Amino acid sequence: MRAGPLRVPFNGRPTTPVMYWDSDIAKWIEMASYTLAAHADPALDAQIDEVIARITKAQQPDGYFNTYFLRREPAKRWTNLRDWHELYCAGHLIEAAVAHAQATGKTTLLDVIRRYIDCIARNFGSEANQRRGYCGHPEIELALVRLYRFTNERRYLDLAKFFVDQRGTQPRYFDQEAIARGADPAALFFGTYEYNQSHMPVREQRTVVGHAVRAMYLYSAMADLAGEFDDAGLMAACKTLWGDLTTKRLYVTGGLGPSVRNEGFTTDYDLPNETGYAETCAAIGLIFWAHRLLLVERDARYADMMELALYNGALSGLALDGEHFFYENPLASRGGHRRWTWHRCPCCPPNIGRLIASLGQYVYSTAEDEAAVHLYIEGSARMSIGGVGVSVQQKTQYPWDGAIEIRVDPEQPLEFALRLRIPGWCRSARLQINGNELDVSALMNRGYAHVRRRWQKADVVELNLSMPVERIYAHPEVAADLGRVALKRGPIVYCLEAVDNDAPLRHIALPRSNPVDARFERELLGGVGVLTAQALAAQPSEDGALYSTDPPDMRPTTLQAIPYSFWSNRDSEEMSVWIREI
Amino acid sequence: MRAGPLRVPFNGRPTTPVMYWDSDIAKWIEMASYTLAAHADPALDAQIDEVIARITKAQQPDGYFNTYFLRREPAKRWTNLRDWHELYCAGHLIEAAVAHAQATGKTTLLDVIRRYIDCIARNFGSEANQRRGYCGHPEIELALVRLYRFTNERRYLDLAKFFVDQRGTQPRYFDQEAIARGADPAALFFGTYEYNQSHMPVREQRTVVGHAVRAMYLYSAMADLAGEFDDAGLMAACKTLWGDLTTKRLYVTGGLGPSVRNEGFTTDYDLPNETGYAETCAAIGLIFWAHRLLLVERDARYADMMELALYNGALSGLALDGEHFFYENPLASRGGHRRWTWHRCPCCPPNIGRLIASLGQYVYSTAEDEAAVHLYIEGSARMSIGGVGVSVQQKTQYPWDGAIEIRVDPEQPLEFALRLRIPGWCRSARLQINGNELDVSALMNRGYAHVRRRWQKADVVELNLSMPVERIYAHPEVAADLGRVALKRGPIVYCLEAVDNDAPLRHIALPRSNPVDARFERELLGGVGVLTAQALAAQPSEDGALYSTDPPDMRPTTLQAIPYSFWSNRDSEEMSVWIREI
Repeated sequence: MRAGPLRVPFNGRPTTPVMYWDSDIAKWIEMASYTLAAHADPALDAQIDEVIARITKAQQPDGYFNTYFLRREPAKRWTNLRDWHELYCAGHLIEAAVAHAQATGKTTLLDVIRRYIDCIARNFGSEANQRRGYCGHPEIELALVRLYRFTNERRYLDLAKFFVDQRGTQPRYFDQEAIARGADPAALFFGTYEYNQSHMPVREQRTVVGHAVRAMYLYSAMADLAGEFDDAGLMAACKTLWGDLTTKRLYVTGGLGPSVRNEGFTTDYDLPNETGYAETCAAIGLIFWAHRLLLVERDARYADMMELALYNGALSGLALDGEHFFYENPLASRGGHRRWTWHRCPCCPPNIGRLIASLGQYVYSTAEDEAAVHLYIEGSARMSIGGVGVSVQQKTQYPWDGAIEIRVDPEQPLEFALRLRIPGWCRSARLQINGNELDVSALMNRGYAHVRRRWQKADVVELNLSMPVERIYAHPEVAADLGRVALKRGPIVYCLEAVDNDAPLRHIALPRSNPVDARFERELLGGVGVLTAQALAAQPSEDGALYSTDPPDMRPTTLQAIPYSFWSNRDSEEMSVWIREI
Repeated sequence: MRAGPLRVPFNGRPTTPVMYWDSDIAKWIEMASYTLAAHADPALDAQIDEVIARITKAQQPDGYFNTYFLRREPAKRWTNLRDWHELYCAGHLIEAAVAHAQATGKTTLLDVIRRYIDCIARNFGSEANQRRGYCGHPEIELALVRLYRFTNERRYLDLAKFFVDQRGTQPRYFDQEAIARGADPAALFFGTYEYNQSHMPVREQRTVVGHAVRAMYLYSAMADLAGEFDDAGLMAACKTLWGDLTTKRLYVTGGLGPSVRNEGFTTDYDLPNETGYAETCAAIGLIFWAHRLLLVERDARYADMMELALYNGALSGLALDGEHFFYENPLASRGGHRRWTWHRCPCCPPNIGRLIASLGQYVYSTAEDEAAVHLYIEGSARMSIGGVGVSVQQKTQYPWDGAIEIRVDPEQPLEFALRLRIPGWCRSARLQINGNELDVSALMNRGYAHVRRRWQKADVVELNLSMPVERIYAHPEVAADLGRVALKRGPIVYCLEAVDNDAPLRHIALPRSNPVDARFERELLGGVGVLTAQALAAQPSEDGALYSTDPPDMRPTTLQAIPYSFWSNRDSEEMSVWIREI
């Protein structure tokens, strides 16, 4: 998605600034910068400059910058880190500044933000005259790691580590700041610090709890820091949390956080479909976390999850027109769940926007003498391996087809390992280099086929991932899904949508032995994979009785499924991912 | 249940009187009077007298009596009929007064209430100086019919008819009274007059809507008046509403009103199990309505419904100890749904109390030259048919067994028709008189076997109703029940309760072809029918995976079901009426 002009919410009507709007401006700058990096656009460039000029002008002599607090509550700066998103906004500004500098070479925003971070670093830390606080909404931690990686200035990394290590320690900062401002420290959202993951030190956390986006952003920073500091304790906590999420609290789409109440987690296996919250930003956060764990652990299961959340739980947040958004991504609807153009809390549009605009960074990674291909997406990239430029070009219809051609073009012949992800869902993969078949199983390590060789200009890798339709079953504790099946092909989770099916979706049952066929429909929704099967539809009895000693008659029907993330682009009637199986 | 001493709510703590408490006092008097009629109890008699003396003392010179308005809001009498339950309380006082007079022969309360009704009759009516109002919570209408039947004074019947006919007419009284008291007439519960069934004239109503108890009490009065006035239009409306309820909006237990929000109806086929509201008083109200339709139409289908709601949706509201109550009767629970001893809105305890204490009136009815047996319950009754005393004695283990022996003892030989209900669920019935087999099918009329003969002392009727276990399926539009089965034997709906089953109930699936066995368990819950079957329980995979391409393994398990109305008498863990069927 290319960034459009900055929207003014509720245009022409009085607006009430909210304390997290700086973050949305920042995400817009970040998204716009990624867009600039891919496509020159002087008008957009100028628009970004204008926004940055305003930020620069508003910055205080001590470096502080936060629109809400400067304009609305100047006396309340840093008095409620728990609820007021102040450092969270700073975090997004960091990400924007780095993306802007990377895209344009300009340090206008970066200079402003570094002064702001200096201000924060003076005020926060473990010295006697500093606040031992951290933000109720994690974000600044991962952003500071990013700033460190871009600037190579260690103090940013240390500040990130301070915030993460401090979280959940006793005495609890959020209690102290509440008392300091004359508030009852017990009067907090939902009565629990689990809401913002400050209920205990992060290294002791075993269960994914609270607000899902906050959790994902915190865990992302934990993964970053575990890698940077080679911190086994932090990585162990990360992996325990990962295990908890992926074995008990995750939708099949990679969506997460089932409850609207806390925008987050509830209890094990509580994954209702129709009322599922599964905020778009939470699935995006899972992509961030998975990506970071992938870079540290080099294990394809993280890439599998990144891909799952990307193609399903996150992408569903964005309409095909690029201008309508889901905040909530339930797995079933009785109708009426529509994407909107603007939202009171407009976090999702710029978040999905910056994800899509920066997708390239998730596809590959490089190390000293290797290049890894994590995602299969048609496109090209230039990378540097051991100082040698290597261009890589993918040709594929993936995810609609498992055939991938990768052309590797080093500037000069170069030995390195090309790591090719063999997705966890793939039961059979074939690999050829320049037409010569390799034994994939012999090359496998943590989910990647390692092809170490001396690469030459125009080497061609052909990878064939078998991609049959699979039936997915949930753990029987997931009450909503028991007796139901989800259809998946490759990384794509499918759903039934009313417009494609004759029978009301709730009446459809798919016999276990019926084959499910896949085809590509060029004309549908811009071209998507489609699944079809012979199924049965329950019929009301002829007398319309509410209760009967006879089970409903089942008439034959043809079931058609489309990718979940493409639903609600034609109408917003009934939809269901989980199909009754008989 | 015998009436215990009148409880003082929140004993020893200050209480806030609420405007409907008179109704609960009245229901207590009514229940206590029924109890007195069955068992002499001088202490209870004296306690009732004491309450009546207080009511008498508080009555105003003009006849008005309402504790709340007299003590708290004397200036607001009859200013908000829509919300304030004023005439509703009067209705319950009428029922109490009639029951008390019938039980004791004393007219102390009746005299007071008749003066109050005189006061109401002066104030309400279609004369120019009268209010054209009616109560937001129906009750006085059916109570006035009852008062008419006891006193034979036609003016009570006419006032009932006025209230029913006036309801929902234009200009709408509730709008007018709102304007008169300076309120916005549009500020009403849920923004709709459907809530209290005043959205249109009752004869035009086609759909059961709004607060379920209000609906049942209104429809009961409509049935009464349709019978008294031989009013075909009113009866047609009643039957349309009956059809709507029973084919689209009723739980299999006879519970009704699925939503906690309006304590009432929502949309067609919206019958969620776990969140089902199904207020005890609503099922009781359905019994009232069904009973009245039965007396007018003489059709056993109304008795079938009366019996279903009695044994299931209503009785579940009362614990075996007679001292704990459900307000809400969901059809499934994950645990934690417990009966309570007292409730902020204590309508259900005295309502189920007066129902149980007056059960006898639902068992038989008599007419000029007939006696009808509507319910089969061990016990004896004395009735008068054509001026001749007839004693009837039932011996039966019903509802646990379909064998019923009825001894008919007329004071003198007497020809009359004995109508014996053959329940709708019964596929095969055998009937013998003094050992001689009759052809039941030849005797059938509207669900009753009519046995017209000259009855003699000690005639013995033996009725055998076959009572196999039946599997019940819901209409496929009931999303919560699709793929599920309920077990029923005779009038009793069964449920699984955690304490009786090894596997978590949510994991259990009953194969369609497995037989379900019934037995009587003398030691369980005071003696109840129990159903058992070989079933299967879904097993988590060994690796605990959240999603898998393999369906869950199913291990054999024995399922045991108990009557739904007996649940939550041992613990309050998982419960489910609807069982997954495979």
